[in-house]
Amino acid sequence: MTTTEGVDNGVNVQALLDAREALKGAPEAAQFTWRATTRWEKGVHTTTTVKDFAGLGAEQNHKAESAFTADHPEVFAAEDNGITPIEYLLVGLGSCLTAGVASVAQNRGIQLRSVEATIAGAHDIRGILGADSDVRNGYNAITVSFKVDADASREDIEALVAQSQKRSAVFDALTNPTDVSVEVV
Amino acid sequence: MTTTEGVDNGVNVQALLDAREALKGAPEAAQFTWRATTRWEKGVHTTTTVKDFAGLGAEQNHKAESAFTADHPEVFAAEDNGITPIEYLLVGLGSCLTAGVASVAQNRGIQLRSVEATIAGAHDIRGILGADSDVRNGYNAITVSFKVDADASREDIEALVAQSQKRSAVFDALTNPTDVSVEVV
Repeated sequence: MTTTEGVDNGVNVQALLDAREALKGAPEAAQFTWRATTRWEKGVHTTTTVKDFAGLGAEQNHKAESAFTADHPEVFAAEDNGITPIEYLLVGLGSCLTAGVASVAQNRGIQLRSVEATIAGAHDIRGILGADSDVRNGYNAITVSFKVDADASREDIEALVAQSQKRSAVFDALTNPTDVSVEVV
Repeated sequence: MTTTEGVDNGVNVQALLDAREALKGAPEAAQFTWRATTRWEKGVHTTTTVKDFAGLGAEQNHKAESAFTADHPEVFAAEDNGITPIEYLLVGLGSCLTAGVASVAQNRGIQLRSVEATIAGAHDIRGILGADSDVRNGYNAITVSFKVDADASREDIEALVAQSQKRSAVFDALTNPTDVSVEVV
């Protein structure tokens, strides 16, 4: 696949294709560690910061530190200083799939005009409240609906979205299990 | 379990216990839908907004709309306007487990002074780059390390963290599979 001239979605596909080839022969450089630090404020209000990560065999930094507030809404008797932790999963999913659509479109020579994804997660809160031990704590199901305006047929747009899903880090993380270990230091 | 007088972590545990009892008899009110909308900016840069949700049988709103920027870092030939989509999963995990620690501590009559969680996700980016089809797209593993300063023994603190994990929405969402359906509208 080559990048079609004249199409510019702002994704440097050539750099990604070059990285793919380079990392085939250097698997250790492909090992990234992403990090975050969460500090308790009060109640269920927390602040999480993200700044540094490791990858390409070295310590790396984002240009700026980002801080994220989480809380519970007033209907849970909290102060609603920010979105809930589980909503951050929808932020990750929507942004990952949408970034993927742009990358695949660039690679396929499809000019995008606009992309919007609506994400909805169905959550039975009896799980986290301990009201019913048969109810899971997490989402029961998540739906993502894309509106894409592009120089492409509906069939090509559906194929774009399907390919984005196939390569999405967050889609995989939500649809398949990951080992999470929690310790007290 | 009752709340011990004099302990105040800022969590209204009585309201949560009341909600648990009320929702045992009203499962339909326990069905929440959390929502987000992602808009493509340029390249892999997106903006995701979160404002409304549904629950307790009605439409609900956060007090304010929140907006979240995602992008890729400069080492991926992008502009690093914000953290990557997969890092948002760590924000959700850290904030969920930390909020849980505060809630369980309140319920057990343990006064917290500080809680800090360090979250790290190991990610082999050969998956998302398509460099090796045997490598998954998501995290290979995630670790969470808690430092808790509280009026409690180490054993009680470890039990707090374990109970938070047991009731965590995001811990469940990452360690167990969820059905995610993606469509073009």
